[in-house]
Amino acid sequence: MPVNPKRVIADLEELRSLTADEHGAQRIAWGPVWLKAQAWFETKLEALPVERHYDAAGNLWVTLRGTSDRALLLGSHLDSVPNGGWLDGCLGVLTALEALRAIVEDYNGRPPVTIRLVDWADEEGARFGRSLFGSSAFAGTQTIAADRGRTDHDGDRLEDVLRECGFDIDRIGDAGKERANAAAYLELHIEQGPVLEELGLPLGVVLGTKGVERHAITFLGQEAHSGSTPMAVRRDALAAAAKLALEIRPIARKHPDSVATMGSVKTFPGIVTAVVGRCEATLDMRDLDAAVLAQMFDEAQSASQRFAEQENCSVEWSRIWNIDPIPFHPDLIELCDQAIREVAGVSHRLPSGPLHDAAEVARAGIPTVMMFVQSLNGLSHNKAEDTKHEHLELAALAYARLTEKIMHWIAQPS
Amino acid sequence: MPVNPKRVIADLEELRSLTADEHGAQRIAWGPVWLKAQAWFETKLEALPVERHYDAAGNLWVTLRGTSDRALLLGSHLDSVPNGGWLDGCLGVLTALEALRAIVEDYNGRPPVTIRLVDWADEEGARFGRSLFGSSAFAGTQTIAADRGRTDHDGDRLEDVLRECGFDIDRIGDAGKERANAAAYLELHIEQGPVLEELGLPLGVVLGTKGVERHAITFLGQEAHSGSTPMAVRRDALAAAAKLALEIRPIARKHPDSVATMGSVKTFPGIVTAVVGRCEATLDMRDLDAAVLAQMFDEAQSASQRFAEQENCSVEWSRIWNIDPIPFHPDLIELCDQAIREVAGVSHRLPSGPLHDAAEVARAGIPTVMMFVQSLNGLSHNKAEDTKHEHLELAALAYARLTEKIMHWIAQPS
Repeated sequence: MPVNPKRVIADLEELRSLTADEHGAQRIAWGPVWLKAQAWFETKLEALPVERHYDAAGNLWVTLRGTSDRALLLGSHLDSVPNGGWLDGCLGVLTALEALRAIVEDYNGRPPVTIRLVDWADEEGARFGRSLFGSSAFAGTQTIAADRGRTDHDGDRLEDVLRECGFDIDRIGDAGKERANAAAYLELHIEQGPVLEELGLPLGVVLGTKGVERHAITFLGQEAHSGSTPMAVRRDALAAAAKLALEIRPIARKHPDSVATMGSVKTFPGIVTAVVGRCEATLDMRDLDAAVLAQMFDEAQSASQRFAEQENCSVEWSRIWNIDPIPFHPDLIELCDQAIREVAGVSHRLPSGPLHDAAEVARAGIPTVMMFVQSLNGLSHNKAEDTKHEHLELAALAYARLTEKIMHWIAQPS
Repeated sequence: MPVNPKRVIADLEELRSLTADEHGAQRIAWGPVWLKAQAWFETKLEALPVERHYDAAGNLWVTLRGTSDRALLLGSHLDSVPNGGWLDGCLGVLTALEALRAIVEDYNGRPPVTIRLVDWADEEGARFGRSLFGSSAFAGTQTIAADRGRTDHDGDRLEDVLRECGFDIDRIGDAGKERANAAAYLELHIEQGPVLEELGLPLGVVLGTKGVERHAITFLGQEAHSGSTPMAVRRDALAAAAKLALEIRPIARKHPDSVATMGSVKTFPGIVTAVVGRCEATLDMRDLDAAVLAQMFDEAQSASQRFAEQENCSVEWSRIWNIDPIPFHPDLIELCDQAIREVAGVSHRLPSGPLHDAAEVARAGIPTVMMFVQSLNGLSHNKAEDTKHEHLELAALAYARLTEKIMHWIAQPS
């Protein structure tokens, strides 16, 4: 197989030199640097026997016709957050490009199944706060009514910015047409976490994306003077919140991959001389197993009630957002595991805490899998984001092997 | 004794009608409503055989000459916080006025010792953040260099505002001359806490003002993605702060009157999807016993270090402010206790968590005591601040008895 891992790294570096400044990558979706990245990417396709077009939601589709119309989709996103890293998103696109080049060569331009590379539009949601924009339109889970009026920091509306880029927000659901003949979806991404680095492994198979329960929790006690109010009569809302901040940890640790995070605490009146009368906290809980997630949510709610009673406070919960766990396809997980073992000797299976376009594709019923490559220090969305070159090369090799395996899986009689 | 408790309440109500609006009292020091309150108060003095003048720091002194030059000082403050209550400060001044009227009548204008009523300037520090302004100048603990450049919300400087009121900030130390012949100081105040109400008692003797240790505490961990960072590798600065928020309570509860308060917690980045990398908290600890306060401070520091280590964080402490405990005079405490028992049957001794002008007077070496009257619901600095009329009347009666006792205590050969 003529896959050339060093070419992936060369492409990544070329893209970085075109679209990053001293603060990092600046490929914010719908903006000039992102459009420049897409134009550069299209030049890379010119030598290949492929058709390309943008769908109604701004996703770029690159199609290599195969003997069968049944298609293997290879995807990721070129857009980045402001001051982003050199790998998040574009690694998946450029590794897919290298795999596509190898398939063209291996099969003399006519593989057994159709290969479609997709560059999803606005995965990050960095400008309008709507992540997975393009892949949700593809999956049919778009939320046009809610998104139409979203504005960026300058007050520009998503609807208008889309129009300037040539897209009509009322028609983005037409991207669903691209689902026709889709037989499998593969995405490579950096882990954006510390698990593979801790294990000393370059690559992992992603089991799915975790479900998320995201809530605002308010404890109400009684503001009181810090000097004149005896400890025994206080109704300290912070104490109740502090107990919950600690209790969510054993709740999560009952399960191997669960996480629970209190990311924000605000105290009112929030002055040095007053007992906290109101404490507002946020809670974000994730697990791949819906039953586990539901159990964690119940346990956290019960604990918060118990702590509120202990502190003579009350507590209110308000859901900010939630999503179900999205498991990937068992056959593809197995194939991915094989490909990794063939290239790196050892594989590891792990869930993804962050969401990815792959979650939307899986929600559309298309067999899906993701491969993770190790992140250094778990850093991402940051100029310091990095992965060892040898691991990027192993990723390109395993990815190419996996495309072979999935092509055969698609082609075999079911 | 012709003391008339109902006249105190009538005076309080008259002052309220002149200087409060629908949001509460508005007698902010150095402002027009405060000046109006002082002018009104001076009209109340016109019928009395007293000398009156403002000292160099803006304190108003009203002197009734006695047989001896040795003086009993009766004080409190007419200034209020914005949207303040109808009792904080002015209750002490108007009860002193009623006691002064009674003494004039009882002794036909010539008591055995000199009586001096003082209305302290700017006790609250509401406008410039410098509380106990006038009484600290009296005590010789003024901090002119630090206070000169203080500004209010409009950017006006304390120095300039003082000048407009006729006072030169560089000369406020001249108020120290008023210490001459001061033999004792008495102040009545609402408790501003729930202790007497919980005990069902109208009045209490104040043992002194608690010392205060006030600190900013910063825990430093590592900001991390809430979805991709396993529980086991987190360095959660909020968890360390939450442990401390709970641990300060048993530290304080080892001692009967200690209090410890975490009044403010701030989380950074403070978003729902990130483990807290930095947590800034405040701690306010108070006790009447300096050794107890020092022990609490040591224990809180040690606990914070232990929690930081447990959470793989670091911790830094920065002192915001501190003051030593200021015990009142044992003889005067005993006399106050007697006066309360004679009027109300039962007394109670308690420390004051909040500071008062009496603390500055005691620091100047003048024998000092305070009497507290019950607060309803512990509320203060608030339009809802209130005390039962029957308790205000008992306070006026006990206060007048106590002035008698202290006059005799001063007059007796030492």
